[in-house]
Amino acid sequence: MPPARRAPRRAFSRVAVVGVGLVGGSIGLALKARGLASHVAGVTLDAREARAALRARAIDTGGTDLAAGLAGAEVVVLAAGVSALPALAREALALAGESALVTDVGSVKRAVASAAGRDPRFVPGHPMAGSEKRGVEHAHPELFDGTVAVLTPIFSAPWAVARATRFWRALGARVVRMSPRDHDERAAAASHAPYAVAAGIAAALSDRAGILAARGFRDTTRVAASDPALWTSILLENSDAVGRALGAFRGSLREIERAIRSGDPRALSTRLARAARARSRRVSETSLSSSAKST
Amino acid sequence: MPPARRAPRRAFSRVAVVGVGLVGGSIGLALKARGLASHVAGVTLDAREARAALRARAIDTGGTDLAAGLAGAEVVVLAAGVSALPALAREALALAGESALVTDVGSVKRAVASAAGRDPRFVPGHPMAGSEKRGVEHAHPELFDGTVAVLTPIFSAPWAVARATRFWRALGARVVRMSPRDHDERAAAASHAPYAVAAGIAAALSDRAGILAARGFRDTTRVAASDPALWTSILLENSDAVGRALGAFRGSLREIERAIRSGDPRALSTRLARAARARSRRVSETSLSSSAKST
Repeated sequence: MPPARRAPRRAFSRVAVVGVGLVGGSIGLALKARGLASHVAGVTLDAREARAALRARAIDTGGTDLAAGLAGAEVVVLAAGVSALPALAREALALAGESALVTDVGSVKRAVASAAGRDPRFVPGHPMAGSEKRGVEHAHPELFDGTVAVLTPIFSAPWAVARATRFWRALGARVVRMSPRDHDERAAAASHAPYAVAAGIAAALSDRAGILAARGFRDTTRVAASDPALWTSILLENSDAVGRALGAFRGSLREIERAIRSGDPRALSTRLARAARARSRRVSETSLSSSAKST
Repeated sequence: MPPARRAPRRAFSRVAVVGVGLVGGSIGLALKARGLASHVAGVTLDAREARAALRARAIDTGGTDLAAGLAGAEVVVLAAGVSALPALAREALALAGESALVTDVGSVKRAVASAAGRDPRFVPGHPMAGSEKRGVEHAHPELFDGTVAVLTPIFSAPWAVARATRFWRALGARVVRMSPRDHDERAAAASHAPYAVAAGIAAALSDRAGILAARGFRDTTRVAASDPALWTSILLENSDAVGRALGAFRGSLREIERAIRSGDPRALSTRLARAARARSRRVSETSLSSSAKST
């Protein structure tokens, strides 16, 4: 008689993912591909989204009942839209167990961090990964591999921060910590303002000029193809920091334009070389993997 | 005794490529990979560049003597930097045979078109393909496949336009015709202004925010990593049209910022949705192949 099969020891027992679109679905796929959780429960407002996530095998069970999904979860990841997160965080903390970690993936951190109050179980988070595409159909298990996951704990318990760190590292991310305010300021400069600028370029190109759009245009405006509703929430939620980042961008662009108008090749070339160096520094810093995707 | 080997009939006999960096080198590789020319001669000011192109098998023979390189060429492609092209076009037309087509790949067309005067052998051109990388080391034979090649003939003979069209089609490009002025206006909007904006974003990002730079930032600023000298020439050569394109961009961005400040989700979402639709329209219009690269 063969020995009784023993289930392999998992890094996490039950993980609940609330919102199983591109990011939530990729978390589920990553947990399952890496054998990290004994059970992945998906919770969503939209029963069709739950069915799609089940079909994609991103979750083991799925439904629209938050209490049922969170019951017994060791880790609860809130992967809904930015504007829904503050209320969802309060609700999830009311339903989650005493020893559950509750964390989120929102692109703006101040509002959700303050909504969670001083609850030691909550660790605000933001994996710097996403895509211009929506839905679990575009989710993939390596989405977080080689990316940076930001945690912005203030009142979080040390065990909760440690678990959140272990969670994102297990998914392949490098974890960095900063304050919610600091995150929102830096994310405005590195992601939210560049999106607004890309949208501006895309909107400005006339149909006549469109025929000459090639790879440069395509890459520069890729993020502008993202879900407008998602970005509307992010830009409104972080409007003050986005305004400051766009101000800094306008200053840089003004210097380049001034050098163009001056007709001085040395002055212009100096500015452009500085931009090229700055760009190489940013991109090598973040050590992106080839599969890393982020908006 | 085996029958005498007959050389296959080639689409072109001798092709001379002047300047064998990324674009010139890719032309050579494409001609050879597709068996389109009986001989590819590389000419360059820099003997090291010629040796690198020979090593990369982008050319059959290479050297620094323009007259020798052009002798007997059916097609002469000028693939030097934008600022060198007007003088080079005059020189090449003085040396090329009476039935040779002389064309170029410059990103700005008015100056080189006017430098060539009314010479019927000259067809100004611009394949919308390139890369942020420099040099024949990064050349590849499919660079032009699926891209758009613009021709801007004014005084060109019909046979010369027909040969230039056949040339770029043979390399996989779709050929479109417009005036030099029209090209420069459209290229400013689709390529030159987006580059300046990408450089502005790259330059504006602080080291502190750089840690949050992910795929969105990387793609939006990819062209900003390009050779500053190359872009200095392009922006100065096309400064009037670039100024107008940047003005249109500033208008679009201002509307997005106004919607952010208004705090009205409907207004902002409408603008962002318009940008997303515009972007999809441009990118599908150009039907880029996966290997297509353009700055």
